[in-house]
Amino acid sequence: MKPFVLIALVAVNLSAYSQESEITERIIALEKAALERWMNGDVYGYLELYAEDVTYFDPMLEKRLDGLKQLTALYEPWQGKIKASGYEMIAPEVQISEKTAVLTFNLKSVVGDKSYEWNCTEVYRKEKGGEWKIIHSHWSCTKPDLK
Amino acid sequence: MKPFVLIALVAVNLSAYSQESEITERIIALEKAALERWMNGDVYGYLELYAEDVTYFDPMLEKRLDGLKQLTALYEPWQGKIKASGYEMIAPEVQISEKTAVLTFNLKSVVGDKSYEWNCTEVYRKEKGGEWKIIHSHWSCTKPDLK
Repeated sequence: MKPFVLIALVAVNLSAYSQESEITERIIALEKAALERWMNGDVYGYLELYAEDVTYFDPMLEKRLDGLKQLTALYEPWQGKIKASGYEMIAPEVQISEKTAVLTFNLKSVVGDKSYEWNCTEVYRKEKGGEWKIIHSHWSCTKPDLK
Repeated sequence: MKPFVLIALVAVNLSAYSQESEITERIIALEKAALERWMNGDVYGYLELYAEDVTYFDPMLEKRLDGLKQLTALYEPWQGKIKASGYEMIAPEVQISEKTAVLTFNLKSVVGDKSYEWNCTEVYRKEKGGEWKIIHSHWSCTKPDLK
């Protein structure tokens, strides 16, 4: 292979790698910003990130919620009511395929005298305007202590 | 707008719609086939569907599992040991963006004298050869009865 072809290929790969890192950083930053607001009682950080067609699971629900309207009705009563004394996002991982980025992480949080452990999946989609929005969210308890 | 432009636009929309339905049906069929094998003790239905870079949550784990090798080690000891007497996939929904399809559903299953309710997320990615593979899976208990 001629050197300039090799250099061109390395450059293309480096550019793809750098684009992936940039998206990874961007997605984690979006999630951390919404999480920070959530842990301080502001549910609108997440509500502003969800797409209109978002689907959603959490362990308090009997079935999946569909759409931003349902999710807004679920979240709004919590506005101003949550205050975490600490939380940690553990091992965030972003899997990117074109305009979709799947963020997964474990989360530890402390609210009052209780600590919680979570599994979290957030599927982000790049919208036409270039913004990333969450189209699917799944929160569950890590290894729940069942009755 | 001239009639032939309108007809062309309607045709393009119908074609996109029909492609989406086709992908939706394909994804649900893949999941149902793997689920049917799982419920009859065969863990390889899912193992054959997972991509090498799959990430995975379930309620028995202390944290996310990463990669097919870890998931194979988790599943193989279960080979031949599960026999459900009944199960039902409830309200499957597929959100498609280019080469990614996010399948979500609730599941009820009966194994022995116990019944289980699940929330499930499966993120499928269309691979270069045209096959759909699961790159992320999140299983959790629906409204777990916590201690």
